[in-house]
Amino acid sequence: MSMKWLQGLALAALAGLACAQDNSTNSTLPVNFGMVLFPSFQALDVFGPLDALNLLSMQYPLNLYLISSTTLDPVSTKARSAGMNTHNSNFSEAITPTHTIHDAPALDVLMIPGGLGTRADDLDPLIDYIADASKETDYVLTICTGSWLAARAGVLDGRNATSNKRSWAGREGLGNGTNWIAHARWVEDGNVWTSSGISAGIDMTLAWIASVYGNDTATDVANSMEYERQLDPSYDPFADLYNL
Amino acid sequence: MSMKWLQGLALAALAGLACAQDNSTNSTLPVNFGMVLFPSFQALDVFGPLDALNLLSMQYPLNLYLISSTTLDPVSTKARSAGMNTHNSNFSEAITPTHTIHDAPALDVLMIPGGLGTRADDLDPLIDYIADASKETDYVLTICTGSWLAARAGVLDGRNATSNKRSWAGREGLGNGTNWIAHARWVEDGNVWTSSGISAGIDMTLAWIASVYGNDTATDVANSMEYERQLDPSYDPFADLYNL
Repeated sequence: MSMKWLQGLALAALAGLACAQDNSTNSTLPVNFGMVLFPSFQALDVFGPLDALNLLSMQYPLNLYLISSTTLDPVSTKARSAGMNTHNSNFSEAITPTHTIHDAPALDVLMIPGGLGTRADDLDPLIDYIADASKETDYVLTICTGSWLAARAGVLDGRNATSNKRSWAGREGLGNGTNWIAHARWVEDGNVWTSSGISAGIDMTLAWIASVYGNDTATDVANSMEYERQLDPSYDPFADLYNL
Repeated sequence: MSMKWLQGLALAALAGLACAQDNSTNSTLPVNFGMVLFPSFQALDVFGPLDALNLLSMQYPLNLYLISSTTLDPVSTKARSAGMNTHNSNFSEAITPTHTIHDAPALDVLMIPGGLGTRADDLDPLIDYIADASKETDYVLTICTGSWLAARAGVLDGRNATSNKRSWAGREGLGNGTNWIAHARWVEDGNVWTSSGISAGIDMTLAWIASVYGNDTATDVANSMEYERQLDPSYDPFADLYNL
């Protein structure tokens, strides 16, 4: 039994204790956040949640690790194949990772974005990393089709979860006994939170902030963003739009 | 009279013609988009609009230039002073620029984000760039306190404009005869669009897409983002919240 595992167990026990004492705050607050990055990720999946957390980091001491699935080269939103860029646009953004999946530090919160890159056939090392890292984090948060990666890693086995609605069919066959919930802006199941497509990650992150840091903090962050957050996780006009 | 200026005039005339013919589409569609970046920019100011445009670039051939105010080094959201990071967080993201203000190509659309970095005292070269570039673009779009930079560059002289609501006072004294509108999610004045704080940039960009590429295209992009866009530019609960 490793020290790291014991530390994780102790943190989890403390978190459980805090939850029992107070439903809206947590005395063992998360400090170390990791967002995984892979080629052709969806930009807002990453930056909606991260900008809420950027603002939270002005109120709490937080660390962010941007964890590349490959190397320390910038990770781009660029389409990985011509078929994904039929109009031959040259329109993408690249982020600088701080670590790779091979040297990432221990995390309190693991975040997994989606995007067309989740459909690539070379993501096994990333899936392995998610499977290992998620066992030691206090929370796992997925955005959009990031839930497909979490499902492949076993994180959603036997859990309630949601995903992108336009690409809803893509979750089929992923996860073991996962209860996929179509009508959901986001789903919380224990320490695993999954959101619907792209912008839903903002609402999920603000709800997660409310759950962990208290509602006033979440409201303050949302007000700073001038964002009217959705408070009802079951509100989902896009499930209707896509006939789910 | 330079060729570039003549080209700009011809494009503007064509754009005017297109507007006269059809209020919702433009036969001379923008192709080249530039987003300026400076240290301590606000992440969602950049990535809300850009991710809407990332999705648009799957329907139209678009090019994106990320234009640094300094060098080609990655540009970070990191606080520029300890006073802006009182909890000693290590929580930031860095983007790779494609150009600097010294070698940026001609643009059809110039976009200017906000953030704490707009308060820095070394932005004169960026202001000069904005003043020059905005004379040759078809559109200028500012997000949040990006309007402060546009105002300093003279882009908002004699125009209607808006800005971040929590930091509303910061616009005072900027612009020459600018009519600052407090109750606005965004303001369109000719070819200059300004949005309120952070997430308002998403609504403005979708409204701009509707104006230039048609409402169906904007709706499709918003649906892909699973984002319920605000259609009323005068809707602004945050102006009320901050007693404006």
